[in-house]
Amino acid sequence: VEADVRQSKQCAGFRAAGVAAGIKKNAAPDLGLIVSDGAATVAAVFTRNCVQAAPVTISRQRATSGVGQAVIVNSGNANCCTGEQGMRDAVAMADAAANAVGIDPERVLVASTGVIGEPLPLAKIQKALPALSDALRQDGFEDFAEAIMTTDTVPKLVRRQGDIEGHPFTVLAAAKGAGMIRPDMATMLCFVCTDVGIDAGLLQQCLHRAVDRTLNRISIDGDTSTNDTVLVLANGCSGAQVATPSQLEAFQVLLCDLLGDIAHRLVKDGEGVTKVVDLTVAGAASDTEAFQIADAVAHSPLVKTAFFGQDANWGRVIAAAGRAGVPLDPDRIDLYFNDVQMVRNGRGCGPRAEALATTVLQRPEFAVTIKLNQGDGRATLLTCDFSVEYVKINADYRS
Amino acid sequence: VEADVRQSKQCAGFRAAGVAAGIKKNAAPDLGLIVSDGAATVAAVFTRNCVQAAPVTISRQRATSGVGQAVIVNSGNANCCTGEQGMRDAVAMADAAANAVGIDPERVLVASTGVIGEPLPLAKIQKALPALSDALRQDGFEDFAEAIMTTDTVPKLVRRQGDIEGHPFTVLAAAKGAGMIRPDMATMLCFVCTDVGIDAGLLQQCLHRAVDRTLNRISIDGDTSTNDTVLVLANGCSGAQVATPSQLEAFQVLLCDLLGDIAHRLVKDGEGVTKVVDLTVAGAASDTEAFQIADAVAHSPLVKTAFFGQDANWGRVIAAAGRAGVPLDPDRIDLYFNDVQMVRNGRGCGPRAEALATTVLQRPEFAVTIKLNQGDGRATLLTCDFSVEYVKINADYRS
Repeated sequence: VEADVRQSKQCAGFRAAGVAAGIKKNAAPDLGLIVSDGAATVAAVFTRNCVQAAPVTISRQRATSGVGQAVIVNSGNANCCTGEQGMRDAVAMADAAANAVGIDPERVLVASTGVIGEPLPLAKIQKALPALSDALRQDGFEDFAEAIMTTDTVPKLVRRQGDIEGHPFTVLAAAKGAGMIRPDMATMLCFVCTDVGIDAGLLQQCLHRAVDRTLNRISIDGDTSTNDTVLVLANGCSGAQVATPSQLEAFQVLLCDLLGDIAHRLVKDGEGVTKVVDLTVAGAASDTEAFQIADAVAHSPLVKTAFFGQDANWGRVIAAAGRAGVPLDPDRIDLYFNDVQMVRNGRGCGPRAEALATTVLQRPEFAVTIKLNQGDGRATLLTCDFSVEYVKINADYRS
Repeated sequence: VEADVRQSKQCAGFRAAGVAAGIKKNAAPDLGLIVSDGAATVAAVFTRNCVQAAPVTISRQRATSGVGQAVIVNSGNANCCTGEQGMRDAVAMADAAANAVGIDPERVLVASTGVIGEPLPLAKIQKALPALSDALRQDGFEDFAEAIMTTDTVPKLVRRQGDIEGHPFTVLAAAKGAGMIRPDMATMLCFVCTDVGIDAGLLQQCLHRAVDRTLNRISIDGDTSTNDTVLVLANGCSGAQVATPSQLEAFQVLLCDLLGDIAHRLVKDGEGVTKVVDLTVAGAASDTEAFQIADAVAHSPLVKTAFFGQDANWGRVIAAAGRAGVPLDPDRIDLYFNDVQMVRNGRGCGPRAEALATTVLQRPEFAVTIKLNQGDGRATLLTCDFSVEYVKINADYRS
């Protein structure tokens, strides 16, 4: 069984590892490496924050080539707001990884996550790289996923298998998240390995589509990181090719499913999260307006603290919707917690609905649906509550 | 001395009172009334939330006449999302006040604050009105200020005195705030009484200018209420007239000073607030862009929790600025906590600056200044931290 489980976390032609390099204060794993046996097609999505970490700048440049072979990632330090030295450190970190595994440094992508504004402890990374390289194994992705964690409480590692014209193929993703997450950005570190063969343009297109539907539709606290990176490496080792529309469809569906699973895990393990909330705004004048309203509700501290308090305080949901900057008619709003209708035409449905809704909010996951009854626009966001623990985690983050 | 203190909370020709009508569960005062001896000029600013409480709709209509004589206010129930019944209740509440004091109902303005979506307990209000009317006194503003509190821990009552061409005059404001507050809205309940004589157009203009510089420049949690109302009644009892530019200037300065004081008190007494932060963004391409960046930083949960943790985590401030949707060059950013420079050209100033900044953050109030060095645009916001107590208050609000 153990062998089966380990087998289940592999992807043909890829090896991975994670070790403790001493970057984190607590001796936890903090340096991870993924290497493909041969050159792989690369696609990537990065943060849209104007303030971008050095590794983002380096990886963005290198990803444009469409070719890569390895990713080196550290946690515990973001290598951000570190100026020219930070750029040199990011390149040197990639160089050290390239040397250790014997590949072209230009084929090494790099990512960092952790505290902003402190110099990268490059010497520790360089010192740890031989051991990290020695530790590379096909079943090393769990160690990798653990090494990239910051305030995550569990590693996120997900795998899906499909078949394209008789060729089985695999897509595997390791991610870290937890805080500084909002929609409409590449919202975390996420590294996807797949053994399909695909060209860089198609892979980039598949990645954008999948991210738009999954990782860009989650919100924890509305902040966006300076280091957000989603990378895909596709090495072709399975023999499955993605080129025709039907092949593309098979791959796209699996990639969306995989990243949807990652997105859900990221929210569930968000900082201090006790409730995962599937928020839908329907009946808006347009999808864009629906999204604007969902965004306002998903980021309202009053709504989020009510979720934490298991309080079906629908008035706060309506009030947050009302300030989204979108015209709406309050007297036409319907609101549901799961299947329980709480509001009809802008007015509360009374104590019985309230009692039923309260039991819904006691669950760890539930849906909130706002129907505006004004058009066909629709948007869905995966969000969460705002807990005492979130504040404690983030007040004490650097101590 | 007692008489002096009471005297200091009066404004010629106005009486006020506050009583417990049983709307709140805890038997605290929850119904307040202000009455002018004669007709007064009225100006008002209301919430821009699309979802507006019934009393907002009623008061907005009545304020357009430019004339008013009384304000009746309850706490404990927002009379919002209450449909046609809510509108009838708001009118009936004003009618009851008019009857009790013997004035024209159309001259009574009305405001409510508290839980959204529950029917207004009108009978309790009607029953309490004779006692409330009997309690009206020139020195009754402290009772009024207490009766309009929700999660406020202290009443907010402020007075300023000035002189126009030998005529002393007074401006007095009672307000409640605490949560659901963000800039660029009329952000709370605030009732201003003054004994100057002024026409309605000028008074509205003065109020808009003062609110833009004060109450619209504070932020607690970024949420905006469905009930926000700022009302001014000017009864002319002092004999001081405001008509010429120099008279206007004298009144405007005092009104800004008064509302600035109220704004500061609202933030200081914000829900769970332990830090009051004077946030300035300077050197932006325009004032608008400066405001956008200040707004993003002021509402970042990561920045606010770092303030709560007394952590000079400047990386979070820069990261929040970077996601404001405004182009900026991170390598030109300077950042200060009070006079301590923490960031120069986008990079940290090192451990000595960090140690100094940490002592700044231990104070209950401090300034954060972000210099973009890109232009002359500037904006200032008064904001606060995000504490464990904020979450507790809002998770348990309705229980």
